[in-house]
Amino acid sequence: MFEEKKKLTVIKVGGKIVEEPETLTSLLNDFSKIEGYKVLVHGGGRSATALATRLGVETEMIDGRRVTDAEMLKVVTMIYAGWINKQIVAGLQALGLNALGLTGADLNYMRSEKRPPYPVDYGFVGDVKEVDVRILNELITKDVVPVLAPLTHDKCGNLLNTNADTIAAEAAKAFSSFFEVTLIYCFEKKGVLMNEKEDDSVISSLTPELFEKFVSEKIIQGGMIPKLENSFNALKAGVSKVIITRADAILTHSGTTITL
Amino acid sequence: MFEEKKKLTVIKVGGKIVEEPETLTSLLNDFSKIEGYKVLVHGGGRSATALATRLGVETEMIDGRRVTDAEMLKVVTMIYAGWINKQIVAGLQALGLNALGLTGADLNYMRSEKRPPYPVDYGFVGDVKEVDVRILNELITKDVVPVLAPLTHDKCGNLLNTNADTIAAEAAKAFSSFFEVTLIYCFEKKGVLMNEKEDDSVISSLTPELFEKFVSEKIIQGGMIPKLENSFNALKAGVSKVIITRADAILTHSGTTITL
Repeated sequence: MFEEKKKLTVIKVGGKIVEEPETLTSLLNDFSKIEGYKVLVHGGGRSATALATRLGVETEMIDGRRVTDAEMLKVVTMIYAGWINKQIVAGLQALGLNALGLTGADLNYMRSEKRPPYPVDYGFVGDVKEVDVRILNELITKDVVPVLAPLTHDKCGNLLNTNADTIAAEAAKAFSSFFEVTLIYCFEKKGVLMNEKEDDSVISSLTPELFEKFVSEKIIQGGMIPKLENSFNALKAGVSKVIITRADAILTHSGTTITL
Repeated sequence: MFEEKKKLTVIKVGGKIVEEPETLTSLLNDFSKIEGYKVLVHGGGRSATALATRLGVETEMIDGRRVTDAEMLKVVTMIYAGWINKQIVAGLQALGLNALGLTGADLNYMRSEKRPPYPVDYGFVGDVKEVDVRILNELITKDVVPVLAPLTHDKCGNLLNTNADTIAAEAAKAFSSFFEVTLIYCFEKKGVLMNEKEDDSVISSLTPELFEKFVSEKIIQGGMIPKLENSFNALKAGVSKVIITRADAILTHSGTTITL
């Protein structure tokens, strides 16, 4: 018997939005109004760096990725899984959403492997190897709203720092077996821009062909490249739609829509 | 139709045990061998105080309870829900237990109210008002192992610091509608002692009558009194058995058994 998949929206928001009380409140309000099932994935890098600094732990970034030694792992776990995740969960509960905060270790929903130390030793950073959202799928159909912190585990007792964009894409892919998934990446711009200096030069729609053309012409560069690669991979793995936009546009779906 | 309730063991361990790598490993190993369904409730006060000190946040305790201002709430949330809870979850996953870490905000399983500021203003400290473990009960029957951090929420967006003994008792009471619950409080002694200076003077069994007699004779005093009051309340509310013992005795059930 043919049964239509129900809609699920996976929203990924960067640290900046969840770290300021006003933008967080506004985000959670908008998020609570999204129709259908939903999942929130958050970052928290700025707060992690701020806490590290207060504790005298040095922050080292290589190609935009955080080098995570044992001390830094403790800092990011405290910030991501502790303060930011639980503030979001409590905030969503206040809005009547039955939120549940998780790292990849919780329910063993996302297992990773420590990244090899060559060419760069990032320390306790994990590359995702296995995603099992069976229990989460059931919980979602009971109106539970998973709130995913950017940490995974290796199933050998170690937590591993993992990029939030990757967590969002991997989770969205796994959820797409059960749901019709829209993945929305929120960042500080209105979408992918034709001209970095022109805030309104949003590319409304991107295909793999256009993406390659824009990369070769250096219109798209830097951190946007892995974000878009993640998006195309997610679409190829079953996600229905990927949108890149600003956090204040998660209800209107304006921004850049990525398609195959 | 009569259906026998399945067994569930709720273990509460204090901060000291979960804060040292060796005692934590040993505890998790023993815990993983407990037969039947299980729940772990943990503290973390020493680590919270240590982090607070590093951050220049002053720790104030009144009658053994932590005064929790906004800064201290952030510290305890980072330590309890972040570092300690997730280390335990990852450790249990490595032992093959499908752990899920939660505060009271997660799944809205424990709602509290901020304690009135008279006679003592403890700040962001919550008194438990409502426990709803329906989703947790279902998860437990799917072999999920809840790991409960000593934090609740007020359903208005605020996390509240809540005594781990109380969380254990309230959760045990709620679980007892569905399971035959044994509640085990672990602390540094072998049980409730007749003579504080004699480590082996364990009172093997305590009833409310004996308890009152020992309190009047000052054999039982201090922090043990609320722990035992919690225990009797839990028994009256349906918990089958309460044991007070040392963390290394959670498999043997030696120590003090509390009965009505």
